[in-house]
Amino acid sequence: MTPDASPPCDPLRHEVLAAVFGVRADAQGFASLHVLVWQRAQAPDAGRWALPGGDLAAGEDVERSMRRHLADKVDLAEVAHLEQLATFSDPARVPGRRVVATAFVGLVPWGVHPSLPADTAWRSLDHLPPTALDHGRIIDRAHERLRGKLSYTNIAFALAQDSFTIASLARIYYAVLGHHVDPTNLQRILARRGMLQRTGGTASPGPAGGRPAAQYAFTTRELRVTDPFAAFRPPDH
Amino acid sequence: MTPDASPPCDPLRHEVLAAVFGVRADAQGFASLHVLVWQRAQAPDAGRWALPGGDLAAGEDVERSMRRHLADKVDLAEVAHLEQLATFSDPARVPGRRVVATAFVGLVPWGVHPSLPADTAWRSLDHLPPTALDHGRIIDRAHERLRGKLSYTNIAFALAQDSFTIASLARIYYAVLGHHVDPTNLQRILARRGMLQRTGGTASPGPAGGRPAAQYAFTTRELRVTDPFAAFRPPDH
Repeated sequence: MTPDASPPCDPLRHEVLAAVFGVRADAQGFASLHVLVWQRAQAPDAGRWALPGGDLAAGEDVERSMRRHLADKVDLAEVAHLEQLATFSDPARVPGRRVVATAFVGLVPWGVHPSLPADTAWRSLDHLPPTALDHGRIIDRAHERLRGKLSYTNIAFALAQDSFTIASLARIYYAVLGHHVDPTNLQRILARRGMLQRTGGTASPGPAGGRPAAQYAFTTRELRVTDPFAAFRPPDH
Repeated sequence: MTPDASPPCDPLRHEVLAAVFGVRADAQGFASLHVLVWQRAQAPDAGRWALPGGDLAAGEDVERSMRRHLADKVDLAEVAHLEQLATFSDPARVPGRRVVATAFVGLVPWGVHPSLPADTAWRSLDHLPPTALDHGRIIDRAHERLRGKLSYTNIAFALAQDSFTIASLARIYYAVLGHHVDPTNLQRILARRGMLQRTGGTASPGPAGGRPAAQYAFTTRELRVTDPFAAFRPPDH
């Protein structure tokens, strides 16, 4: 029994939280995975950085609630993908009261710079400041989900611009996966899965000169699992 | 405002539910995906079939709660895999009160036959009786998650026996995916990913005779994403 539990009322509260990621240039100009956080002004954990979110209201489900709270921090039109991650329910995750949190992962594409409230900022996962409550653990789990989905889905569409060179796409994969991805192999894997198409355009060469690089786009901007068994399906599938 | 909302108490309740799947022989003897359900005796939806579960208690997180409630129906030692699926929170999902549900997917291997309470049974997804509340939707989402994970993880270890022939493994894939999977292609894909090993044993030929079939096992019984980018990782990973 918690001290404030008084039947027949259940003191449980339900909140929603979003780990919104984007690959952005860090202070040194390197592409790095960033998360959208705001600095708490009040206890608990005043001064620490927290994920956007808030309480589930009576007439809404968790998805609607998440969009409502997230709209306080960022233009939802600039969030290219939003999916439920998991529910975090350690009885001690918020001191003094029982709060169950359903967390989401959101993605904002490269080159999109939403205007943000004064308390809110993009922070690189390479130099994450102290986070509030269990939000650091939620960020880790969200990062893990994103790494996994880069491997078995086309989710990179929500991190890349509409059209891109293979070299710039490889930098986005590098920022999320944390290890080098060879552009030639990346192109081969994505092409074999039918995930890439040429746009016909080219990128102008950088300061070092060289041949203009071909521009690509994802064939679909809806999340798809790249299914190795799809090849065995009957033709009507 | 719901009619029973009386501040400062929040009437929200949180429950956990599990869609426990197993591939089992159906009434005709065909391998078919089954789900563990129990027949409700009381309103709402008395007589309909429901997923095992119950309320989240004060001192437990959703995983612990799920294991506690599931243990009422089935020996947990026989559940080879249990993972959180998603939280279902439509305000109208349970008539008359606000109940948010965190759902799980559980897997019981082929050939394991847990003893069950009288109100509980395995039912084939091909002939699912009328389900209670939104449990049919939860079963669909759980099935979708399982289909996806068969494609990009080694999760089949939790549906197959410890050792198996490729033909029997292909029947398990067929039961989950709903389309034919060629055993030769299945073996090739799983071998390329390093997921399969020969046990050295053979299965005795069936009534039709023929050569004894080689027995295989999964190389690991821990869930792994089969990552196509793993090949590009530095050697210390």
